[in-house]
Amino acid sequence: MNRIVFSVLFCLPVLLLKMGFAQTSVKEPANGVYKISEGVIEKYTPECFREEKADINALKQLSKGNIPFNISDINVSVDSRGCKIAIPLGEGEQLYGFGLQVGSFNQNGLRKMPIVNDYPLNNLGYTHAPLPFYVSNKGYAILVNTSRYTTFYCGSNQPKRKQNIDTDIPAETKLSVEELYQTKVSGRNNVLVDIKGAKGIEIYVFSGPDMLTAIQRYNLFAGGGALPAMWGLGIKYRVKADFKQTDILNAVDYFREKHIPVNVIGLEPHWQTAAYPCSFVWDKAFFPNPKEMVSQLNAKGLQVNLWEHAFVSNQSPLYKPLYDRSGDYMAFHGLVPDFVDKPTRDIFAKHHKDSLLSVGVSGFKMDECDNSDLSRGDARWSFPEMTKFPSGIDGEQMHQLFGLLYQKTIYNLFKEGNQRTYLDVRSSNAFASPYPVALYSDTYDHKQYIEMISNAGFSGLLWSPEVRESNSFKELVMRSQTAVLSAQALFNSWYLQYPPWLQFDKGKNNRGELLEDKEANEQVIRTLFKFRMSLIPYLYNAFYQYQSKGIPPFRALIVDYPEDEKVFNLSDEYMIGESLLAAPFSGNAETRKVYLPKGVWYNFNTNEKLIGGKEYTLKFEYDKLPLFVKAETILPMARPVDFISNDTQFDLTCYVYGSGKTKSYLFEDDGTTFDYLNGKMNIVELRAENGKIMVTRNGKFKSKRFNVIKTIFIK
Amino acid sequence: MNRIVFSVLFCLPVLLLKMGFAQTSVKEPANGVYKISEGVIEKYTPECFREEKADINALKQLSKGNIPFNISDINVSVDSRGCKIAIPLGEGEQLYGFGLQVGSFNQNGLRKMPIVNDYPLNNLGYTHAPLPFYVSNKGYAILVNTSRYTTFYCGSNQPKRKQNIDTDIPAETKLSVEELYQTKVSGRNNVLVDIKGAKGIEIYVFSGPDMLTAIQRYNLFAGGGALPAMWGLGIKYRVKADFKQTDILNAVDYFREKHIPVNVIGLEPHWQTAAYPCSFVWDKAFFPNPKEMVSQLNAKGLQVNLWEHAFVSNQSPLYKPLYDRSGDYMAFHGLVPDFVDKPTRDIFAKHHKDSLLSVGVSGFKMDECDNSDLSRGDARWSFPEMTKFPSGIDGEQMHQLFGLLYQKTIYNLFKEGNQRTYLDVRSSNAFASPYPVALYSDTYDHKQYIEMISNAGFSGLLWSPEVRESNSFKELVMRSQTAVLSAQALFNSWYLQYPPWLQFDKGKNNRGELLEDKEANEQVIRTLFKFRMSLIPYLYNAFYQYQSKGIPPFRALIVDYPEDEKVFNLSDEYMIGESLLAAPFSGNAETRKVYLPKGVWYNFNTNEKLIGGKEYTLKFEYDKLPLFVKAETILPMARPVDFISNDTQFDLTCYVYGSGKTKSYLFEDDGTTFDYLNGKMNIVELRAENGKIMVTRNGKFKSKRFNVIKTIFIK
Repeated sequence: MNRIVFSVLFCLPVLLLKMGFAQTSVKEPANGVYKISEGVIEKYTPECFREEKADINALKQLSKGNIPFNISDINVSVDSRGCKIAIPLGEGEQLYGFGLQVGSFNQNGLRKMPIVNDYPLNNLGYTHAPLPFYVSNKGYAILVNTSRYTTFYCGSNQPKRKQNIDTDIPAETKLSVEELYQTKVSGRNNVLVDIKGAKGIEIYVFSGPDMLTAIQRYNLFAGGGALPAMWGLGIKYRVKADFKQTDILNAVDYFREKHIPVNVIGLEPHWQTAAYPCSFVWDKAFFPNPKEMVSQLNAKGLQVNLWEHAFVSNQSPLYKPLYDRSGDYMAFHGLVPDFVDKPTRDIFAKHHKDSLLSVGVSGFKMDECDNSDLSRGDARWSFPEMTKFPSGIDGEQMHQLFGLLYQKTIYNLFKEGNQRTYLDVRSSNAFASPYPVALYSDTYDHKQYIEMISNAGFSGLLWSPEVRESNSFKELVMRSQTAVLSAQALFNSWYLQYPPWLQFDKGKNNRGELLEDKEANEQVIRTLFKFRMSLIPYLYNAFYQYQSKGIPPFRALIVDYPEDEKVFNLSDEYMIGESLLAAPFSGNAETRKVYLPKGVWYNFNTNEKLIGGKEYTLKFEYDKLPLFVKAETILPMARPVDFISNDTQFDLTCYVYGSGKTKSYLFEDDGTTFDYLNGKMNIVELRAENGKIMVTRNGKFKSKRFNVIKTIFIK
Repeated sequence: MNRIVFSVLFCLPVLLLKMGFAQTSVKEPANGVYKISEGVIEKYTPECFREEKADINALKQLSKGNIPFNISDINVSVDSRGCKIAIPLGEGEQLYGFGLQVGSFNQNGLRKMPIVNDYPLNNLGYTHAPLPFYVSNKGYAILVNTSRYTTFYCGSNQPKRKQNIDTDIPAETKLSVEELYQTKVSGRNNVLVDIKGAKGIEIYVFSGPDMLTAIQRYNLFAGGGALPAMWGLGIKYRVKADFKQTDILNAVDYFREKHIPVNVIGLEPHWQTAAYPCSFVWDKAFFPNPKEMVSQLNAKGLQVNLWEHAFVSNQSPLYKPLYDRSGDYMAFHGLVPDFVDKPTRDIFAKHHKDSLLSVGVSGFKMDECDNSDLSRGDARWSFPEMTKFPSGIDGEQMHQLFGLLYQKTIYNLFKEGNQRTYLDVRSSNAFASPYPVALYSDTYDHKQYIEMISNAGFSGLLWSPEVRESNSFKELVMRSQTAVLSAQALFNSWYLQYPPWLQFDKGKNNRGELLEDKEANEQVIRTLFKFRMSLIPYLYNAFYQYQSKGIPPFRALIVDYPEDEKVFNLSDEYMIGESLLAAPFSGNAETRKVYLPKGVWYNFNTNEKLIGGKEYTLKFEYDKLPLFVKAETILPMARPVDFISNDTQFDLTCYVYGSGKTKSYLFEDDGTTFDYLNGKMNIVELRAENGKIMVTRNGKFKSKRFNVIKTIFIK
């Protein structure tokens, strides 16, 4: 890969500033990225396991903004308890991030403990992806590069200071809980960070000039965003855990026959001889000929993804080689491999290569890597925090990094084979932007699932708000709309005999009591899935913008409109790519309010022109997506195909919104290898002018994947 | 006080055993109490702040039991992360404790983090009283004497060990969450303890021979149980936060006029000029003459209790003297006094003495000492864990100890004045048994409130399941029944204009929309309150058993019946004193199942004789308490009075259950001073024989508080 070696960065001028009680070092390892180091740095930080080098060239392209405080005002101190940091916080600043937060959005004034867990506990900050990272609407981001459990006090707690009794804080007696909550805490001036047990720390400050650029800078410093295999942008459908080879082939026939586009089939635990913990060996009773099955599925345009977790059963051929390479406590009777250690990762990966990739498997779902016992009280689901691993890492740090290391282990395998993929994982952390891996969850609150799309975009994460059962067909459709408007459109029927649109109720579904309206329902779902397939060229380009420029393909409105107070707490609308605004429905709503930021917008379904800076009311429709298009956009919508394969060509209808004189781009490559990094790619320019679209290709990729067959101008 | 000085204990023979990697010391500081020390012991443990010396004489009276493992098999190791302990755990052992757990009872197989918090987060173990303490039904208890956040893995997690693939763990693939949950984890053999940041530890092992004795031993080692002022066993009623002096006097007139017994009036924040944080100064606009008001209340037989928290407002006269004696972060704009430091406690206490006790106040409600921000996400409600205090303690340890230290500060004040009291607090910890302080909570699940009565008894804690609003009068009555069957009968109307029995709905209550049946309701409540007043002689003796022998006055059935599998998970029934079994109703139940352990029992209301070892069905009745009496009991029930004062004499009807030949005891003293510790007390023996009760007094207390006026024999 054509990137400058990271280590040369340290030749950049070094500032030494006095902070806290010790010498603090400040460097600028990349354009606009500042690194503060103090004390004894931990052996195992998230950055230690970075998947890619920083994209120095792309970082150079970003304009360098001011940070609204002096970096030297960041105060770091180390004492016997651990490491404390105080980071300036201005009046009125809004903070976001801390990974895949569940149930909160604007983190201003909150105390957050981003600790890995599969279940959010009120507002503690526990999450599948516990990033010690936040971004301010004032155009900068902060990463505390630690794998220790860390607490952030986002502006509410204040150090003691002499108060002027007469003027400072008026005395009053509050008589209700409501009054207490309303108490304004004045003089917020620091984000406080508490890292118990740390003897030193590295802090990265990513400058703006604006919020989006700060996020881009973080993503590019992590190595750039993920570009999944193109087929990964299609629909992924996970079948019931007890499906046998023939059941799967039957399910697939149903999809193809009904022209319900599905691109990936996911198998749940029973492909293995043992789980939990895992054997990683095909169960021949259920799958007599895996290779043949995968070939048959491939022939029908389907990729195969396998569920697993990393805890190794004594029934597994990996048990013996990993015994001395695992922690001193078990998880669910299984060995916990020390993924910090490269040879250990290699042993684990090689088995996958030899037994599973060789059969044609092209993806994995990496489950149970998020210390899920925390919420259950029952401690069996993972290893204790005091576990010791051969590498010297302890259980706490391993918990925070386990999902990251698991991704590294599996993703490397594909990368080495020059094969792109799209994986699933239940935990992640910092520096994960380059992984083509979507997070998923067992939580199932739809409103939170929508908010998590917004939250994921702050922190270099991809999130799939998967669809399982529902309380009604209407709710199922709302969830399906959200799914097709997300980074990964995932239907997880691991406990459902039939697709949920045939019966949304789990019990009835498994008893075969299907809905009467099933054909009408299929028609609705088909429409939504086809919409997803139409959007793929646009989405694929959005992911390329992520990969090459660090722009999150899915992001909260605050990222693009950081000064608009109306979006400070708006988490149920988000941007997709450059120009689409999605506003999914949830609950039992017939209508919802949609706030459009300033500018001119178009209703995607009616083409109605709307002036931004205010709220509109949108009506729920089963087969229409709640989408708005920014003026001066060319939206290329493909004629939907049943699946994407390596040679799929897309016939595009280009919708030109606004004046009719504008440009958009598409990204063209083989969709499945890393050859684009060596130039085998095209940037396809679509230029609208004088009632026509002009298409120009720039690059060395020889085939043509996109044909504009029609253009529609919308004023 | 006639107790042997604690320090002589260390002259007892010392065993030195090799454990972990370092020299471990094992001592027996009191009969059947073993102390393991390893590494560098923390400066601030719960024991550092013990309120009383160990009651060595009482401990000597306890028979010394075997512990079902060798103490030398407790493995302690210290490494760079902290301290780890492995304590043997036998197959089938049942574990209880960890302080005032909310939402769990039998802790077997669970992971528990007893961390101070006002809100339980699923099953993390967060609680108002986070004791690092558990007790086994096999007759021993373990205290890890630390104020650091500590995690206990109660038998589910296992160290790695070589497995015999053929026989050890059968391979299978689980296809549902249910199957996974049902997986039996075999070979449980340790409770694992993880104390991050500790460089050493003290562990106490309290031997049996049985579960009750182990608990007694812990309580006596802590200095014996609490003996509240006798008036504290009456009803406590907290008035609405905005009540002025006249409102309070009016409310009291209502109670007296209606003969609804109330013994203590609690004032909420507005007695002060500022809260939050607190000024600790009377608000003269609301209370023009506090001394006069307290005198008037005293004259009507009422004690006065004041709400406060310990965070000091800049409006307080305590602000200046405590400025340099407080932590470097504030809580809700207030100073956090360093209660570790005795001079700081003394300054705080002296203000209370001079301004509040001098006026006649006889108790306090110590609020907000439980780091309540943890659950809210909003960090304003307490100080950060990284706070530093002048004594050197950090915020984490201070959080765990704050309630304990707050109790010490306030209780000492009363003790020094030879004045007994009964206080309220929202957090506690180990060695708190001697404090006459009841815990309370803002959580309000009635079933959990009942369970917390059972849980409190394991760990030397008193719990008051307070009554606030309700969804129905029936629910209110159920909650009231639980309250009068608890350690403190508390009605907390801090946001209710009228008593909840006049209107259980908060909104309607405050709008003055009272229930139509209000006189009938008053009659029900009067009956329940009068029952409480009748029970006081029995209760007072139960508390004396707690004080002198460490027997919890309220305790789960498992404590008395540790081998009865039917009570392993039974948390909604409990023992009161020696012979009463309570089985409160909750929810909307018309009937409930009551399990009676082996032996002979009597229904308290019908006198029906019941054979134990099985379940009975009990019907809910508004004005009847769900109580059962053990055979061979003399239950002394007093003619109810409207309030207890220093010279109250109790006219007793003795109910003799069973053969008619048995003995019971009462404890007689002035009820309000510590003179009983110097012998000014009587043990009153009630001996039933030949259809009569013989009363014998033993002791130096000159007055007679109990007169048997009637005896009823029940066969």
